Amino acid sequence: MPLSAAVSAPLPVLGRDVLVPLADGSEVTYAALDYAASAPALQRVWDEVAAYAPYYGSVHRGAGYLSRLSTELFENSRRTVAEFLGCRPDDQVVFTRSTTDSLNLLAGALPWRTRVFVFETEHHAALLPWGRRDDVRVTWLDAPRAPGEAVDILERALAARDPHGPALVCVTGASNVTGELWPVRELAAAAHAHGARIVLDAAQLAPHHPVDISELDVDWVAFSGHKLYAPFGAGVLAGRADWLGEAEPYLAGGGASRRVVRDGRGLVRVEWQEGAARHEAGSPNVIGVHAIAAACKALTEAGFDALVERERALVDRVRAELAELPRVRVLSLFGEGAPRVGVISFVVEGWDSGRFAAALSEGYGIGVRDGLFCAHPLVRVLLGREPEECGGSLNAVRVSFGVGTPDEHIERFLRAVRELAP
Amino acid sequence: MPLSAAVSAPLPVLGRDVLVPLADGSEVTYAALDYAASAPALQRVWDEVAAYAPYYGSVHRGAGYLSRLSTELFENSRRTVAEFLGCRPDDQVVFTRSTTDSLNLLAGALPWRTRVFVFETEHHAALLPWGRRDDVRVTWLDAPRAPGEAVDILERALAARDPHGPALVCVTGASNVTGELWPVRELAAAAHAHGARIVLDAAQLAPHHPVDISELDVDWVAFSGHKLYAPFGAGVLAGRADWLGEAEPYLAGGGASRRVVRDGRGLVRVEWQEGAARHEAGSPNVIGVHAIAAACKALTEAGFDALVERERALVDRVRAELAELPRVRVLSLFGEGAPRVGVISFVVEGWDSGRFAAALSEGYGIGVRDGLFCAHPLVRVLLGREPEECGGSLNAVRVSFGVGTPDEHIERFLRAVRELAP
Repeated sequence: MPLSAAVSAPLPVLGRDVLVPLADGSEVTYAALDYAASAPALQRVWDEVAAYAPYYGSVHRGAGYLSRLSTELFENSRRTVAEFLGCRPDDQVVFTRSTTDSLNLLAGALPWRTRVFVFETEHHAALLPWGRRDDVRVTWLDAPRAPGEAVDILERALAARDPHGPALVCVTGASNVTGELWPVRELAAAAHAHGARIVLDAAQLAPHHPVDISELDVDWVAFSGHKLYAPFGAGVLAGRADWLGEAEPYLAGGGASRRVVRDGRGLVRVEWQEGAARHEAGSPNVIGVHAIAAACKALTEAGFDALVERERALVDRVRAELAELPRVRVLSLFGEGAPRVGVISFVVEGWDSGRFAAALSEGYGIGVRDGLFCAHPLVRVLLGREPEECGGSLNAVRVSFGVGTPDEHIERFLRAVRELAP
Repeated sequence: MPLSAAVSAPLPVLGRDVLVPLADGSEVTYAALDYAASAPALQRVWDEVAAYAPYYGSVHRGAGYLSRLSTELFENSRRTVAEFLGCRPDDQVVFTRSTTDSLNLLAGALPWRTRVFVFETEHHAALLPWGRRDDVRVTWLDAPRAPGEAVDILERALAARDPHGPALVCVTGASNVTGELWPVRELAAAAHAHGARIVLDAAQLAPHHPVDISELDVDWVAFSGHKLYAPFGAGVLAGRADWLGEAEPYLAGGGASRRVVRDGRGLVRVEWQEGAARHEAGSPNVIGVHAIAAACKALTEAGFDALVERERALVDRVRAELAELPRVRVLSLFGEGAPRVGVISFVVEGWDSGRFAAALSEGYGIGVRDGLFCAHPLVRVLLGREPEECGGSLNAVRVSFGVGTPDEHIERFLRAVRELAP
C-alpha cells in the first residue's frame, strides 16, 4: 500500500512530468523536493491564470470592460485571501511581492520608537527588516530548545521592557530549516499580555497548514505566493489597519496618492490614500494576486486538513527512515517529538552538503537545497559550530515537500540517502 | 487599403478575440485602447511563460536541475534586458516590481543630501518618490511649453544650484498624458554639463520606442513589464552601479544578505551583497522577469523600428481626425507638431469624461481611461484650470495603443468619437 493513500492524494502541480537528465545519460521525472524555497504551481492555479490572461486589464485605472473585470477580480482576490486567513472584519489585506516585502512594509510602518522582539532563529526576511530604523530598537532573543522555553524567553524579555510605547514581536509559524512548528498562540498571548503586538511569518506555515489569524490571535500574517503554489510575484500582509493607516505609504506613486497639487510656494503636496491602496502604489500585479487567491481556494476546496494529515505521514516516514541511518543527523531545535511541516534539514557525516545535494540531483533527479537557508544564526545554533566554520562546505541539506508531492518522490529520496550514506 | 499595412502588421497579443457585451445586448471584440495603463501580453510572451512554467524552480537557492535552470534563465534575462537597453559594460540591471518600485529604489539609494530636479509634469511615480527623505531637497520645475524650453528651464535650475554635492534629474521619455516625447538626450547633456546625473522614466517610452541608455547618455532607465506587454509583476531599474552599490539595500532579507552573525554583544550584524542582488531581497519573480526578457526579444526580432513607424501612422491618423471634430480638444504641452507615442488625451465639450469613457465601453466595446492619469499637476496645466476644479468630472479621456493594436480598433474608436461628439 502506498504510504499515504489512506489519507489523501497529492494535488496536481505543474512540472510533474518534466524529465531531467542524470549523470549516466538517462532521464527521470524531476522530484521537486525544495518546496521551502519555491513550490511548483498548482495545476489549478495555472489553469486559472491561463483562463484569466486574455482578460487582463488595468486595475483601478480604466473604464473599459476588461479593466472593470480585472479590478473586480483583484478586489475579490483580497476577499478570498481574507477568508482563507480568517481575518477579522476590520483587518486589511495588502498585496505585496513576497514575505520579505510584507515584513519590510510593516517595519517601515511601525510607530515611532517601537521596540521589536525577534528570536535569532528567524530567517533573514523576518530577522533583518527591523534593525534599519534609527528610532526602532530590536531585542534579539536567544534560540529556545523547546516551545515552552520560547514563551518563557519572550515573557522575560517583554517584562523587562519599558511598558510605555509600542512593541512588536515577530515570529515564524514553521521554521524554514527544521520545519518545526512554533507555539504561535502562546507567543501571541504573551505578547498581548505585555501590551505588545505580534506578526506571524507564515511563509513556511501557510503552504502546509491552515492559518487562522483570529484563532491564533496574531495581529498580522505575512506569506508569499511562490511558496503557496502560486509563483507569480505576489505576497500578502494581512492584519490590523491602524498602524498601516497611520504610516507613510510604503512606496510613493500613483495609486497611493489621492490628490497631488503644487502649493503657493511651488512645492508639491500629496494627500495619500487610506486603506490597502496606501501601500500598493503602482499598477497592481493582478495576475500574481489572482494566482494566490486561486491557491487559497484550491487548498480549501481540496480539504486542507486531509492534505495536512497526508503531509504529516510523509514527514513521519522520512524522519523514521533517516533516524535509522547512523551517518545522518536531522537538525532540530525542539527535539525528536516536535511537530513539523514537510521541511527537514540534516547533515551527513563524511559528505560535503553541496556535494550531497549535487549527488541527489545528478544521480536521482532530486532537487533539494543545501547551505545556510537564509537563516545563518539558526543554522549555526543547530550545527553547534562557531560562525567561522559556517561559511564552509559542511553545512546542511534540506528536503522539503508539500501538497503536490507524490509518494514516489519521497521513496526515491529515501532510497538515494540510503545508497549515498549507507 | 488599411491605414498602416504599408509599414507593418500588429504583433499578436492575448485577448484579441475576447468578446465583451454592449449595452444593446450584442457582443463585440474588445478594443484595448488603454495601453498606457497596462498593455495586453504579447502572445509570444505568454507562450514563453507557458513553456517555462513547468520548469519553474527557486532562483539562486537550490541544487536541483530546475533550480539551476531557473537561475540561468533569470540571469540570462538580465543580459537580454541589458542588451535591449544598450547598457554600458559596467551598468547594472536590477529587477523590481514596476517603474514605481524602480524609482523608489533609486530615491532610497541617493547619496546623502542629493539635490533632485523634477518637472511638475511627471506622473506620480516619478514625481513623488524624491520628497520623502529629510536630507534630499527637491526642486520642482515648471511645465515647459516646448522641448527647448524644458532644456532651458533645467539649465537655469542647475546653474543656480550649489555646485557641490550630488544632484539628480528625473525625466520622462514620453508623457503618460500627452504621449509627447521629451528631449532626453539634450536634458542628459544639460544634467551632465552641470555635474548632475539623470534617470529616464521610460514607462511610456520603452513600449513604443527603442531606448538606448548609451546613446541617450542617461545614467539610469526605469520601466515596467506590464506596459511592455509582459504583465507578470516585474519591472526594471538599469544603469550606474556606484550609487546603488554604496546604498543600503532596498529591502532587508535573504538574497541581499551575504553573511549574518550575532556579535559578542548579542546583536545581529549583516554583511550585505554587492551587485544587483543587494537590492533584490526575497525570492526573485523569475516568471515576471522571464516575461520581460521575452518581450524585449519579441520587439527586437519583429523589427522595433517598423513597429514604431506603424504606430506613428496610427497616431497621425487619430490626431488628424480628432482635429476635425470641433468639440474635441487634444491636450498638448509642446504643441501641434510635437512627436508623440500612441498616447493621446482629449476633452470633449459637453461631455463628462467619465460618461464619455463609459459610452465608448458600453456602445463600442472600447477600453480607455479617463481622469487625471496619476499626473495631477500636469493635467491641471493642460486643462488650464485651477486645481479645485480638477477633482470634478470634466477631466480628460485618454486613448492609448501600441504594437498589438489592429487598425480596426483605431477605426472603431474614431467612428465612436464622431458619433458621440459630431
